[in-house]
Amino acid sequence: MTRPHTPEVLISEVGPRDGLQSVKATMPTAHKLRWIDALADAGLREIEVASFVPAKLLPQMADAALVVQHALRHSSLRVMALVPNLRGAQAALQAGAQKLTLPVSASPAHSMANVRKTPEAMVQEVQAVLHWRDQHAPGVPVEVGMSTAFGCTLQGHVPEADVLRLAVQLAQVGVDEIGLSDTTGMGNPAQVSRLFQQLFREIGERTGSAHMHNTRGLGLANCLAAYEAGVRTFDSSLGGLGGCPYAPGASGNVVTEDLVFMLEAMGVSTGIDLEKLMAARLPLQDGLPGEPLYGMTPEAGLPKGWRT
Amino acid sequence: MTRPHTPEVLISEVGPRDGLQSVKATMPTAHKLRWIDALADAGLREIEVASFVPAKLLPQMADAALVVQHALRHSSLRVMALVPNLRGAQAALQAGAQKLTLPVSASPAHSMANVRKTPEAMVQEVQAVLHWRDQHAPGVPVEVGMSTAFGCTLQGHVPEADVLRLAVQLAQVGVDEIGLSDTTGMGNPAQVSRLFQQLFREIGERTGSAHMHNTRGLGLANCLAAYEAGVRTFDSSLGGLGGCPYAPGASGNVVTEDLVFMLEAMGVSTGIDLEKLMAARLPLQDGLPGEPLYGMTPEAGLPKGWRT
Repeated sequence: MTRPHTPEVLISEVGPRDGLQSVKATMPTAHKLRWIDALADAGLREIEVASFVPAKLLPQMADAALVVQHALRHSSLRVMALVPNLRGAQAALQAGAQKLTLPVSASPAHSMANVRKTPEAMVQEVQAVLHWRDQHAPGVPVEVGMSTAFGCTLQGHVPEADVLRLAVQLAQVGVDEIGLSDTTGMGNPAQVSRLFQQLFREIGERTGSAHMHNTRGLGLANCLAAYEAGVRTFDSSLGGLGGCPYAPGASGNVVTEDLVFMLEAMGVSTGIDLEKLMAARLPLQDGLPGEPLYGMTPEAGLPKGWRT
Repeated sequence: MTRPHTPEVLISEVGPRDGLQSVKATMPTAHKLRWIDALADAGLREIEVASFVPAKLLPQMADAALVVQHALRHSSLRVMALVPNLRGAQAALQAGAQKLTLPVSASPAHSMANVRKTPEAMVQEVQAVLHWRDQHAPGVPVEVGMSTAFGCTLQGHVPEADVLRLAVQLAQVGVDEIGLSDTTGMGNPAQVSRLFQQLFREIGERTGSAHMHNTRGLGLANCLAAYEAGVRTFDSSLGGLGGCPYAPGASGNVVTEDLVFMLEAMGVSTGIDLEKLMAARLPLQDGLPGEPLYGMTPEAGLPKGWRT
């Protein structure tokens, strides 16, 4: 099988941020660094390594600056940080983050509950971040991951027109990439396909990542639909860490191992070494003893002859 | 949302056969009947209710004739039985089965290990079944589910040309429907799409069901790919019962509840009432105490406003 030298898709690993801030335990810094090293060694080219929020709110992220600084050693890696506001962005850029991502919710109810701001007020916050970035760190891309783009547990249905209008507003103020997040696992492949196709029509190359959840088992099917709609960046989490609201077998985030297996088996190159990726579960598990990890491919192993 | 009166897809529930013959415990007959009643009540229109094999080989299926006879009470249901050979077919037709399915493996290695016959010898066995059917039960459709169509744990890669050649042979001898089974969970969406599209070109309307496994988490993504390729019949199992070769979260068969949720959420009608379908887990669990059931949608519940 011939493979292109440049991978066709970008897997953006969110475990060290999204995963670690969702579990009760705090992973010791040394373990975080070892885990990130293993991820970089497996070929991941983008990792959301930390969240810049007050330590009293999220003690798991108190070492965010240290973690960013360590991750910068990997020249193959784009070191990404989540920031909820300008203050977080200032701290993240100060630490050396190479890409920022801000969450903006399409559902006003979710937005108020989550950040006590309307979506419109969040657009203003994003503008402030962009302004600061332009002054102090030009060239660092700013992404928005649009939460509840496929439905909201508070509001229920989220009109597609609301999602698209907000995306256009964000593009107009200069956000580099706008992705869509299925925060509550309510999306389905038809909707994912429709919404990303519309997003490409509205904002073109600013269309960002698909951040799918596996709450109802549709995570990979939704990633497939997004891929077919033209999406080439996917958020996922090693071991499905992060957002595990339900009982055994349920995981919030799409499992990186299963997603990479699906894409590679389809002949879509990710640049990731699957064996090394699965080996990166060890430092993760070492740093979070007893925490359940998910993933069907790691359980089953790679099939015989799957690459021939 | 307007919905057609005739469901667009047929979900063929395989739990009472495929599921029950994979678990060690034998479900008592009365529980089987209650479970099948609940499935029919939920709107399932085809159920593989039993396997006609010698009771000493599969004691779980010793009551096959009784189960078929009971299931025939449901006029909305097509009562299906798996038969490995002519002898089984005779018994199934005698009991009143309304559709037969035979497993024929695309991998010679798997075929020898499973039924001690080559694929070619199995085609002859199928021919004998068709001949008997023509004489004694004309009008009863005979299906072949082609095992290991997407790969084999013994042989590894299974050439697509082998799958298609065998399918054409089976169509030529008069098999009514030929479906493809991902027996070992090695299939990926690109392969599923390609193979079913070729199958449609080769045998047209005789193209049968997609029987996908969730071994590596790709079950629903593979069903989506099959749907997009034109497949309209899907095999799945309530609670993912059947073929659970690995640890927690891993299930062999695609989970009926998750599959129906995906399709219905996409606006593809199945004719199935999801609430009643999830309620059918109760008689299943009652009949197999302690047996793990899978399914993300049952764990998470139906999302707020998912139908609006």
